[in-house]
Amino acid sequence: MRLIVNRVTSLFKSYSKEEKALIASIKMITGSKPFNLKPYQIATQHTSVAKALKKGFKESNERLEYLGDSVLGMVVAEYLFKRFPFKDEGFLTELRSRIVSRESLNNVARTIGVPQIVRFDRKRKTPNSHKSLYGNTLEALIGAIYLDKGFRHSRKFILKKLLLPHFDLEEIINTTKNYKSKLIEWSQKHSKSPTFEHIDTIDKGHYKEFIIEVKVDDEPIAKGHGLSKKKAEQDAAREACIILELEQ
Amino acid sequence: MRLIVNRVTSLFKSYSKEEKALIASIKMITGSKPFNLKPYQIATQHTSVAKALKKGFKESNERLEYLGDSVLGMVVAEYLFKRFPFKDEGFLTELRSRIVSRESLNNVARTIGVPQIVRFDRKRKTPNSHKSLYGNTLEALIGAIYLDKGFRHSRKFILKKLLLPHFDLEEIINTTKNYKSKLIEWSQKHSKSPTFEHIDTIDKGHYKEFIIEVKVDDEPIAKGHGLSKKKAEQDAAREACIILELEQ
Repeated sequence: MRLIVNRVTSLFKSYSKEEKALIASIKMITGSKPFNLKPYQIATQHTSVAKALKKGFKESNERLEYLGDSVLGMVVAEYLFKRFPFKDEGFLTELRSRIVSRESLNNVARTIGVPQIVRFDRKRKTPNSHKSLYGNTLEALIGAIYLDKGFRHSRKFILKKLLLPHFDLEEIINTTKNYKSKLIEWSQKHSKSPTFEHIDTIDKGHYKEFIIEVKVDDEPIAKGHGLSKKKAEQDAAREACIILELEQ
Repeated sequence: MRLIVNRVTSLFKSYSKEEKALIASIKMITGSKPFNLKPYQIATQHTSVAKALKKGFKESNERLEYLGDSVLGMVVAEYLFKRFPFKDEGFLTELRSRIVSRESLNNVARTIGVPQIVRFDRKRKTPNSHKSLYGNTLEALIGAIYLDKGFRHSRKFILKKLLLPHFDLEEIINTTKNYKSKLIEWSQKHSKSPTFEHIDTIDKGHYKEFIIEVKVDDEPIAKGHGLSKKKAEQDAAREACIILELEQ
């Protein structure tokens, strides 16, 4: 119902030249025209050019980025869940984090034309702060599509316009470094045996951090920390790989 | 279409006594009968009792937990986004992490009857490993509802059966500790001035960890780390609050 109202409303609205240009760009990037332009206008507006709506609150794209990030995370989670029915949740989590990483979102955002639609204050930004600007704007754009057209449409955008054309999953899987496997492999080759020991849990308020120590043949090699024991093990194994010079 | 097929199939299936009991429990917890029982059977089956489907792969509820976690995160993100139109993404992120924390999910899971449907090996579990069993199963149950009935239905379950009846948002907001605000408040009262300085970034493979040092009147007090500068600042402020004994 909301979608129909938005669609009808959009037919009778007259737009400025700038708005028409944004509509054309959105159509190019997402494959269809917006029903309601407002969320896209907010999505393409960096904090540096955002107006203060009320004291201490700016209508920038950061809220939409938060929303879009969660939609993206869910859609990718579901896709990987169905695509890899015999892979465990550790594999799926790791693969997802590679796909939605700052770096890969920035690359995709550049490829599909996000730099052409984002507005930011070029004077106030240093070259470094551009780094995640495009990836963040892409997430905000996903948030805008979700608000404008609902879940199914934003899911379709993520899969058809981002994930499938721009990510080679096989390649990502092959280059994903599994430090624990590497350490175990190396140990077997040298008739050694690695063990992971949970030595401490640090209470960080409403979450916990785990500390894991890895030993090879009872000799302590490295420690790692993480928000789950699995992550702490990977972190410890990564440290151990560096110390034992197993890095490629 | 898939939903209709599932619904029709479920009408003609005959169930064992155990399956009928599970269907009744699912109806009690979620408010409606499953179309397809299979995902719920998997969701309520802890790794300790899961069968090995093929070498190295067990059909336990951990994959569904990964899926359900992402659906839950997204639905809560959207709800908070709309409920608090003038709050920034830092507030929304913090509030969401409180809602979906291990501890609160465990509590809700206990209240709605998850302990009655989860199957696990009581011999192999220590009292400690029960800790997050129910919260994890609740996430897996959300994953099962999503697979069985789609996004809208699982969203309704999360909002109507979990979030609205079991969380007092005002109370959560009031008890959320903002260590940075607390430190700034204390400093102003004592005519001191706190500064946060980004002193290091550690490259952890495909993510970065930021190290922030907090000083009060140029005297270094504490360091904090986190996956964003904001989080590292909060962590440093938390440490500083402990050192300065500002904890309530």
